[in-house]
Amino acid sequence: MSRQRYFKDRIHKIAEEKKSRIILALDLSESIPSDRSTWASYKDNLLKRAIKILNETSEYIVAVKINRQMILPLGLTDRIPELLDVAKDHDILKIMDAKINDVGHTNSWIAKHYFSLGFDAIIANPFVGWKGAMEHVFHEAGDHRGIILLTYMSHPGAVEGYGLSCSNDTAPKPLYHLFAERALSWNADGVIVGATHLDKLREISQILNGEVDIYSPGIGAQGGSLIDAFKNGCDFGIIGRSIYQSENPKQSALKFKVVTQKFFYS
Amino acid sequence: MSRQRYFKDRIHKIAEEKKSRIILALDLSESIPSDRSTWASYKDNLLKRAIKILNETSEYIVAVKINRQMILPLGLTDRIPELLDVAKDHDILKIMDAKINDVGHTNSWIAKHYFSLGFDAIIANPFVGWKGAMEHVFHEAGDHRGIILLTYMSHPGAVEGYGLSCSNDTAPKPLYHLFAERALSWNADGVIVGATHLDKLREISQILNGEVDIYSPGIGAQGGSLIDAFKNGCDFGIIGRSIYQSENPKQSALKFKVVTQKFFYS
Repeated sequence: MSRQRYFKDRIHKIAEEKKSRIILALDLSESIPSDRSTWASYKDNLLKRAIKILNETSEYIVAVKINRQMILPLGLTDRIPELLDVAKDHDILKIMDAKINDVGHTNSWIAKHYFSLGFDAIIANPFVGWKGAMEHVFHEAGDHRGIILLTYMSHPGAVEGYGLSCSNDTAPKPLYHLFAERALSWNADGVIVGATHLDKLREISQILNGEVDIYSPGIGAQGGSLIDAFKNGCDFGIIGRSIYQSENPKQSALKFKVVTQKFFYS
Repeated sequence: MSRQRYFKDRIHKIAEEKKSRIILALDLSESIPSDRSTWASYKDNLLKRAIKILNETSEYIVAVKINRQMILPLGLTDRIPELLDVAKDHDILKIMDAKINDVGHTNSWIAKHYFSLGFDAIIANPFVGWKGAMEHVFHEAGDHRGIILLTYMSHPGAVEGYGLSCSNDTAPKPLYHLFAERALSWNADGVIVGATHLDKLREISQILNGEVDIYSPGIGAQGGSLIDAFKNGCDFGIIGRSIYQSENPKQSALKFKVVTQKFFYS
């Protein structure tokens, strides 16, 4: 598919400026209280905490990744816009970790609104295929918004799906090879490959050959190492709990940023 | 996995009482306006419209399926609880079409809150595997909440994922066979198989052999026929646009309900 990938350009430009390849996974997991009368203050406090962490880490991160732990309590038409405004003010790109895997008209609706309400890129699952599914996400993204495709996730069970060997083509090949090939032929901005699977990172990096960026979650709490991920082909490290659960998020973000600075910019 | 499946029991009991196998996919797709100052009235109107359709169709449907077209604008801690309350008052079960496909701690968070805020069942993607992924969704569901696994979706590109042949086991088999087997061994309440793929419905129905219910979307707007779906193994028909976009949703729901009544209860 022919498309300009302005998101890919933008994130590299910001990375170059900030000398960082760190993306903050802002998955503050504060349970929603059952008493509805407390929701307003719960949401205010959660938003305040999220903004504080974003402010503290802003100079060391290039993007923030938002998942359902924030979307569901804070609401896309409720407190989320304020959070996205803060990120924008800091020149931090906003990635929605929607893991889109629905049919066409629903994919369109989801992607269209995440983009129109301020997200710069979206994560989607290439497993659902192109026709009547992923083609709609790419259509909504156009040239200006980014699409990052799940290619090998960070959890142990990834082998039960992404690791299956598929034989519809000529010779059998692992699904993550097929997904990396889809990322190339669909002209995606990036792929997700867990830092917990260094062998897969290497293989996928060889297939992509620098054409599509590799984003790696699973660093820190899930056991992956940032420097090992970079050595095996990762372009951007996605880090959550090791930053936002640390006693000093700013200091933790700086520590990770320095690793990326040494690897990419020295 | 050993679990009681009370959701499966409940939906059959309600189906028997209402003599219906119809699930309403309430995917009212009204674009979110860009002007934030209009959001309150936009949300009020969308909620009002959703409640009106639910009220009108309530005696003919056993469950309502909610997707991101409603969750994102109405908000899980905003207007959604009111919608779920209305469904509950009508003895309509509430299914969240989350198509969960994330890592463990995120899956837990998502499932836990959809359940605690009122949903009776959740749709998830078995592609992510058990370990560190789907096991967490089943844990949150316990015996009382339902889990419905995507097994063959309704869109044309389903063949590019669900239709792939996988060869990790002994002989190569299509992924949707593997997913049906997972539904059995994980003790899911149901599977999703598009009414647009009757051959797949038949095959999957033979594997499940009545142990796990088959829920079929893709009826009406997407081209599938309700009666053909039932003849090929579907247990519950999921219908959206053909009901909520019709001039008379009540009349449309009744028409579909009568088809199910004749097939199952006469």
